[in-house]
Amino acid sequence: MPAHSTSSGSTTGSTSLPITTEEIFAAHEGGKLSIGVDRPLATKRDLSIAYTPGVAEVSRAIAADPALAQTHTWASRLVAVVSDGTAVLGLGDIGPSASLPVMEGKSALFKTFGGLDSIPIVLNTKNVDEIVETVVRIAPSFGAVNLEDISAPRCFEVERRLIEALDMPVMHDDQHGTAVVVLAALTNAVRVVGKDLAGLKAVIAGAGAAGIAIAEILLASGVDDVVLIDSKGTLHTGREDLAKGTNSMKREFAERTNPRGVAGGIAQALEGADVFIGVSSSKVPEEDIARMAEGAIVFALSNPDPEVAPDVARRHAAVVATGRSDFPNQINNVLAFPGIFRGALDAGARRITPAMKLAAARAIAGLAEDKLSADYIVPSPLDPRVGPAVTAAVAAAVVPGE
Amino acid sequence: MPAHSTSSGSTTGSTSLPITTEEIFAAHEGGKLSIGVDRPLATKRDLSIAYTPGVAEVSRAIAADPALAQTHTWASRLVAVVSDGTAVLGLGDIGPSASLPVMEGKSALFKTFGGLDSIPIVLNTKNVDEIVETVVRIAPSFGAVNLEDISAPRCFEVERRLIEALDMPVMHDDQHGTAVVVLAALTNAVRVVGKDLAGLKAVIAGAGAAGIAIAEILLASGVDDVVLIDSKGTLHTGREDLAKGTNSMKREFAERTNPRGVAGGIAQALEGADVFIGVSSSKVPEEDIARMAEGAIVFALSNPDPEVAPDVARRHAAVVATGRSDFPNQINNVLAFPGIFRGALDAGARRITPAMKLAAARAIAGLAEDKLSADYIVPSPLDPRVGPAVTAAVAAAVVPGE
Repeated sequence: MPAHSTSSGSTTGSTSLPITTEEIFAAHEGGKLSIGVDRPLATKRDLSIAYTPGVAEVSRAIAADPALAQTHTWASRLVAVVSDGTAVLGLGDIGPSASLPVMEGKSALFKTFGGLDSIPIVLNTKNVDEIVETVVRIAPSFGAVNLEDISAPRCFEVERRLIEALDMPVMHDDQHGTAVVVLAALTNAVRVVGKDLAGLKAVIAGAGAAGIAIAEILLASGVDDVVLIDSKGTLHTGREDLAKGTNSMKREFAERTNPRGVAGGIAQALEGADVFIGVSSSKVPEEDIARMAEGAIVFALSNPDPEVAPDVARRHAAVVATGRSDFPNQINNVLAFPGIFRGALDAGARRITPAMKLAAARAIAGLAEDKLSADYIVPSPLDPRVGPAVTAAVAAAVVPGE
Repeated sequence: MPAHSTSSGSTTGSTSLPITTEEIFAAHEGGKLSIGVDRPLATKRDLSIAYTPGVAEVSRAIAADPALAQTHTWASRLVAVVSDGTAVLGLGDIGPSASLPVMEGKSALFKTFGGLDSIPIVLNTKNVDEIVETVVRIAPSFGAVNLEDISAPRCFEVERRLIEALDMPVMHDDQHGTAVVVLAALTNAVRVVGKDLAGLKAVIAGAGAAGIAIAEILLASGVDDVVLIDSKGTLHTGREDLAKGTNSMKREFAERTNPRGVAGGIAQALEGADVFIGVSSSKVPEEDIARMAEGAIVFALSNPDPEVAPDVARRHAAVVATGRSDFPNQINNVLAFPGIFRGALDAGARRITPAMKLAAARAIAGLAEDKLSADYIVPSPLDPRVGPAVTAAVAAAVVPGE
């Protein structure tokens, strides 16, 4: 075990013991998953049913009627958690093997919060064509694809092409899982401050996987003044580095967002803004948070270090959320993805549609409604109502045959 | 559920109730596997250890020292059960989805008899290049590759190229699992009839994946008079269809086997033979079995219908084995593959070597030694001693660094 210091102790809150490196490594020893056999193989009879010769009848039946694979294999309830290890947590491009503990953790979350089986598939290629063709070739092994921690802008193309190629739910969670939970939290935050989604001025710092998807879902939800910021400043149509042929997703969003044509950086963007959403790891000075409108909403989501410390943000903002478990209002993807995939698979969906994502966001927001306050805009990730509620809402939003 | 008749009822023996189609389909409903989470995620603290932020420490450590992936992910104890669905049981090329119940069954056997986790990966390509590159790309996800039910001659090239490309155990079980158990059974059968492996005249009907691998392991074990037969007759160097450029594996074995240059078919081959091993599904008439030498050994391994009925073979042979559970001497791969892979992974082997296969065969044979008889030349697939004994023998045969 490497003898480096504990970087995560500070994130567990003052009420619990700090987590030590030793404890973390011990919990990962040997990995975190295992395969279970649903029916024991104790007798010759068991073997003759689950394996030869009995299994031949099931295989023959599926060969004759492929739809039976949905009901008589585990594929229809199995999610592939696919990553190339290029954008893992805040660690960047650490490669497939180093990303595997994260993917195992993701599988553990799928099981715990969605009752859904999943297998980590980490790829030793970063080539978009190769990623797509590899996932297509192994696709008969499972029923859905959760793309994970693939860096932008490649993640956009990988997701788009896999959605086209596969007749099963495909979603890059870093994009849409995050976006769904942000929308849920924002829906409740505007209620707390007495505003409407429609009139909001929203600023998103970070134009990568999460930032672009959040902009997309905000636009789809009626927020029409959205300004995206990358490391070079606000996205706007006057930026020469976003000319044709370069980074097409950012160019597309320079056209679809920033209706007032705000140029400059975070200071210019936050002037009079109602909402700040940080998914960029870059710091935002207190003086810029202070530029926001009355009843400001700040989601500082970078982990483990938020763009602005929550207590500092709270001096100027009415509602503050982070990605951390030791502050109120934790914006955590686990509120969304287990139920989104479970609902999609339960309902036999072939796509994860915008309607299904919006339904998931509404379901998450709905669970916090009765106790709504500035410090409670989303339910806890451990709230046992979340998985079933999101599952039901998503399944209900599936249009058969779509 | 399809309303076809029960084809497997006859194979369960007269002492147990026949297995019905209904029972088989009910046992496969929803699939046969599931994912288990080794440590529960019940508290925020659990989440902070197994997922963010704690998991980042483990990922960072593996990025710095890749060897930690062996100890801190599940990959090092995970086998990929890879098939393209082209040679599934006796069903032939039924495709990846229809092969999935068989691969799930295989995973259940790995877990039950080797305590080893495995995931079925079924491929919707039959192209050798694509199979190889796909498995190489997903290889960081697991620690070994069990190739399964890939048709000959492609299986030879797929296996050879994956062994070259990957730094982990790779084995096509239809070849080597079968060969190991045949060698174990033959070792004990010759003891029963008072012969030696060295002087045997052996005939193998079937020059596909299993037949070639059996020939290989018999040659490696000192049986030097081996005659292979395919649908056109015995393999010998005079056959024009085995000229250069065609089917190179059969040509290679035409050169390495059949020292007496036996031409013709099964009748010519069995004249005076000591051993018949059938892995071809083609029938062998009783009159040809009658041509064999005194103390003949007949392994009629096709499933569910042996090349010759065991009671018929027994009129002329001293020892008879089949692949079926309802007759004595069941030659079943499950005796070998769980322990071979478990032993290889436990010992950190990077290859499955001939020495490891021979060790496995000796371990299996050894377990039947004390009660050896014409009707007991191999232990039962359910004998709980088998997995641990094969594991230990294989692990002991691993040469560190090889």
